[in-house]
Amino acid sequence: MPKLWDETIDAHRRAVQDTVLETTVALVTEHGLASVTMSQIAKEAGIGRATLYKYFPDVQSILMAWHERHVAAHLGQLAQARDRAREPSAQLEAILRGYARITYKRPQDGEIAAFVHQGQQVVQAQQQLRDLVRDAIADAAAQGAVRGDVSPGELADYCLHALSAAGRLSSEQAVHRLVDVTLSGLQPSR
Amino acid sequence: MPKLWDETIDAHRRAVQDTVLETTVALVTEHGLASVTMSQIAKEAGIGRATLYKYFPDVQSILMAWHERHVAAHLGQLAQARDRAREPSAQLEAILRGYARITYKRPQDGEIAAFVHQGQQVVQAQQQLRDLVRDAIADAAAQGAVRGDVSPGELADYCLHALSAAGRLSSEQAVHRLVDVTLSGLQPSR
Repeated sequence: MPKLWDETIDAHRRAVQDTVLETTVALVTEHGLASVTMSQIAKEAGIGRATLYKYFPDVQSILMAWHERHVAAHLGQLAQARDRAREPSAQLEAILRGYARITYKRPQDGEIAAFVHQGQQVVQAQQQLRDLVRDAIADAAAQGAVRGDVSPGELADYCLHALSAAGRLSSEQAVHRLVDVTLSGLQPSR
Repeated sequence: MPKLWDETIDAHRRAVQDTVLETTVALVTEHGLASVTMSQIAKEAGIGRATLYKYFPDVQSILMAWHERHVAAHLGQLAQARDRAREPSAQLEAILRGYARITYKRPQDGEIAAFVHQGQQVVQAQQQLRDLVRDAIADAAAQGAVRGDVSPGELADYCLHALSAAGRLSSEQAVHRLVDVTLSGLQPSR
């Protein structure tokens, strides 16, 4: 098959998956995980039940795929924010502000959050996020913009835990202040 | 009844409760929450089943009482650590070092932790802890030892989230470094 045709099929598959993911999240949010069936999802997504089963074995796996896509998108956003800045200290700040904003906007409660956060892929995503932050800290520390008396890995854990406070804040301004305070903790000792 | 007799009864009740709490935690840790019965607990604690039911209606309520006592003891420890220091900045540091140490030593996983942390009393204990830290921050800020551009409440949330990283650290030294970094974030802007 010519390459163009492959791409058309890929795009089609991707569009079907997108529809299935969004439909499932909407249904589970409205009716609860226990009462949503594969038949309902197929009907709402406008595809056949057999087609749906070609993509996903069950409702749980659809939620996991939806979450995986979200997490990958967030990590991509953070890497992009980093790449738009030039200096290591600005790159680090861009990552931390981006992460705090994502944490601020992310639903903390609810059945879907509880379900997807128990998966092994969350552990992997956390590890990727930690690596991203740790490497940015190491680069900034090499330039003397971040304290050198604590390892980049420990500082990354400090940052990610401190910024998780953003999940309970009530304004974007408060999120900015939290990032400012967290960044102060990274400064070289006076 | 004379007061002394009341005190003797109180001390006896307290001793029985202590035994029941510790016995239950040991049994649940060994056999799992689902398979421990009130009869087993009574037998292991060396008291009658009827007596046990005078104190607690079920295994869950025993675990909750055990946790409540632990949390109260921790809050008491932190208040004592604060009161041993004189200057507001030293009091704040004593509270934060104490909290980080408790978090470091506390079992993070396991069935008992998961069970007791879903209770409403945990929310109240978190609130008391937050108040303790917030008040210490406000006192230190009034003396210029802590930044004044962010409210004590927001700074308290920052501290408690940052220090929760202690739960995954592997040495006391790392815990000290985490507290140092967190305290740096509280310093007045240069």
